Amino acid sequence: MAKQNGYKVTLDKLTALCKRRGFIFQTSEIYGGINGFWDYGPLGAELKRNIRDEWWRAMVQSREDVVGLDTSIIMHPRVWEASGHVGGFADPMVDCKDCKRRYRADTLCEEQGRELIVKEDGFELPAGIECVECGATNFTEPKSFNLMFKTFVGPVEDDSACAYLRPETAQGIFSQFSNVMSTSRQKLPFGIAQIGKAFRNEVNPRNYTFRSREFEQMEMEYFVRPGEDEKWHEYWVDERMKWYEQIGLASESLEFDVHPQEKLAHYASACTDIAYDFPFGVQELEGIAARGDFDLKQHQEFSGKSMEYFDEADNERFLPHVIEPSAGVDRVALALLCEAYCEEWLEKKGDDVQIADPEAKQPPQGYERRIVLRFAPKIAPIKVGVFPLLKNKPELVDRARDVYKQLSGSWSCFYDQNSAIGRRYRRQDEIGTPFGVTIDFDTLDDDTVTVRERDSMEQVRVKIDDLESHLGKDL
Amino acid sequence: MAKQNGYKVTLDKLTALCKRRGFIFQTSEIYGGINGFWDYGPLGAELKRNIRDEWWRAMVQSREDVVGLDTSIIMHPRVWEASGHVGGFADPMVDCKDCKRRYRADTLCEEQGRELIVKEDGFELPAGIECVECGATNFTEPKSFNLMFKTFVGPVEDDSACAYLRPETAQGIFSQFSNVMSTSRQKLPFGIAQIGKAFRNEVNPRNYTFRSREFEQMEMEYFVRPGEDEKWHEYWVDERMKWYEQIGLASESLEFDVHPQEKLAHYASACTDIAYDFPFGVQELEGIAARGDFDLKQHQEFSGKSMEYFDEADNERFLPHVIEPSAGVDRVALALLCEAYCEEWLEKKGDDVQIADPEAKQPPQGYERRIVLRFAPKIAPIKVGVFPLLKNKPELVDRARDVYKQLSGSWSCFYDQNSAIGRRYRRQDEIGTPFGVTIDFDTLDDDTVTVRERDSMEQVRVKIDDLESHLGKDL
Repeated sequence: MAKQNGYKVTLDKLTALCKRRGFIFQTSEIYGGINGFWDYGPLGAELKRNIRDEWWRAMVQSREDVVGLDTSIIMHPRVWEASGHVGGFADPMVDCKDCKRRYRADTLCEEQGRELIVKEDGFELPAGIECVECGATNFTEPKSFNLMFKTFVGPVEDDSACAYLRPETAQGIFSQFSNVMSTSRQKLPFGIAQIGKAFRNEVNPRNYTFRSREFEQMEMEYFVRPGEDEKWHEYWVDERMKWYEQIGLASESLEFDVHPQEKLAHYASACTDIAYDFPFGVQELEGIAARGDFDLKQHQEFSGKSMEYFDEADNERFLPHVIEPSAGVDRVALALLCEAYCEEWLEKKGDDVQIADPEAKQPPQGYERRIVLRFAPKIAPIKVGVFPLLKNKPELVDRARDVYKQLSGSWSCFYDQNSAIGRRYRRQDEIGTPFGVTIDFDTLDDDTVTVRERDSMEQVRVKIDDLESHLGKDL
Repeated sequence: MAKQNGYKVTLDKLTALCKRRGFIFQTSEIYGGINGFWDYGPLGAELKRNIRDEWWRAMVQSREDVVGLDTSIIMHPRVWEASGHVGGFADPMVDCKDCKRRYRADTLCEEQGRELIVKEDGFELPAGIECVECGATNFTEPKSFNLMFKTFVGPVEDDSACAYLRPETAQGIFSQFSNVMSTSRQKLPFGIAQIGKAFRNEVNPRNYTFRSREFEQMEMEYFVRPGEDEKWHEYWVDERMKWYEQIGLASESLEFDVHPQEKLAHYASACTDIAYDFPFGVQELEGIAARGDFDLKQHQEFSGKSMEYFDEADNERFLPHVIEPSAGVDRVALALLCEAYCEEWLEKKGDDVQIADPEAKQPPQGYERRIVLRFAPKIAPIKVGVFPLLKNKPELVDRARDVYKQLSGSWSCFYDQNSAIGRRYRRQDEIGTPFGVTIDFDTLDDDTVTVRERDSMEQVRVKIDDLESHLGKDL
């Protein structure tokens, strides 16, 4: 799928729209907010629901070889010892001794074209690194800071009660591998998928909702025979790329980022990111990693329970290898919003409103600007706007409410009777509603309504009885 | 809807089935588990998805007057000061000084037919209360224990960084009331609904998944004009009861529990629970409370931001009152499992298998026992089982896979080719799959398949092309 025009939104414009129309709010905004946490308003909540549903449909429902799972956010702390997160999931940090500002040491160095020095027992700042705030070069020693949120289960707040909020959903899958395998009757290769919240105590949350402290993951672990890693890694990179195009991201906005061999974790044989061209740069949407048998082996060792797969045909036991496509719901939502956002000049041509030449350097005379979110219909938060032409004609209002009731059995709809019909269309354009249905005086005579399509703004008359089948082709 | 037979499952039988078939596992079971946390296996994950979807459809999608929301689990700590949770959300606890066992003081007293003494500055155990473990009467003073899980946001673990995992989703709704009101164009009465995880550090998690430390809520705040509380409270009690019957709970398994006026919180004018007859007693599924303007008023006071609604018609500002239907996904899932579970004797009548007289005191000769989950079709985790009659006939297997592919575009299906067809039916009965589709030799001639219905076990021949419309009537 190609992007429909070259419009590229700025982050300022996007965040303003998201706040104004109720896609995204700052968490606890009335108390000044809390850095790294975001709430999704009515439209954002529907957008996220659609993303989750499309992912589940593609990854679980339509596949014979993948089952779902829904594990808890707080797990036994040994899970995170086995996974390596207690020991290794940390960022190096420094404080400016003069102005007290805190930095991630590696990012600070990178931004100044340098590299953080890795020593055997820790890290060291190269000489000359400056505080961005006050210009001083007077920093504390870099200190590791574990990114897991800690809490205490039960009434005693000591080490024995310490637990963590999961920093990824994947370990819930690995820890239940044997239970799922024995109950689901799956044979290799097969996958276990789950969607859920994860938490990372980021030192510097940034780029709007892109790097936040609470976020939602869609992860799948696909278990394969050892030796088949490469084949299945390629398969999943390909599948996942197709999915992003299906939900409406243009191929020219997407990039592969293949991690070079020397930058991979010791147990991994491949990792490919799918990245999107955000207003703040090309950044990861999803990572597809070939992780070998690292996770199952670790849990087998730490728990003392066998994680082996028994192959009946060959009568052998072994640890499967795993391919992990891991995506972020919030990142996909943000990419879809960036991709969909478009501003156009509209001009009146006779009775019709048309999109002016996007290549024109000047707005046409008497033009009107429209903001439109060109969401793929299945991703759009609201599918159909329903409008009586006039709100002071009870016969139109009644018919419109009937149509609303009829359609809202199948889709999220929005009923609006206020202000001129053109302005109502424009309000739905701005939130990406693909169809508008208008009930007018002809409706009372012949039971037809006007169906207006968002992108082309073309209008056709459709029988009320045929609305579901007419709209259903695209929704 | 009436229960189809009088079968009442024990908790032991239910938990065994849930583990054996992959509905519910203990979290981190390989590490010995963690008390009060549960994972949902492949079938449990689908069951929960269906519950959430049905709730969202009924409460948001099909209603003009309700919008959705999706707020973060970690919010600004002032939210919980305003809501009263920091000060008041606590249980009184005592420890046995002899054997060190810990109890909730009020529960311990109740179980011994006594009542915990409430004093001005705390609590006191009545004399003679015994430790259930060791029989001693030597307890510590009752001490309040706050049920919120605590964590630290940012790298410093001090009071200024302290935050909580939300103990309810409702406060996310109240804290965003103004943002939602101004972006969603709703007029009173209207509702804001959300589904999400919540956490309570229960002293004694118990009754399987019923009282756990991590759970999922479905909450809606319905804002009304002051004075209309009673009318809307009645409306929602009625609506919610209908919903439980629609998803398959028999009316005779449900009860209303109307809280007496003297037991209500000072700000509440009514609270009615909908309770279900679980194997461990009649317990709350959902509470429907009339909370007045308490929450909005508290947030207005603590944030200094107006929470008032502006009524354009009457040109006045006021704080709306609220009706709160608050349900638990996990509790609804558990109730549906209890309600659906049934054991029957089957007897052979000629070529057919029939359900033996449920009133008969003795199993019929040559009987077979079947376990069946009588889920309402829209709640069932798997909708259709697809079976080739024989797995060693490629032409049957190929057609069956085609049918699987065709149906799994619309519903969660399960493909199974192993063991005798009767056993495959029985495996699907046990997880509540409403339909089985069998591809046999006739299929190859006339493109029809056998569709078997779970409860009646009746079989009909259906054209493959008509399968969606035939099954779609019930799914």
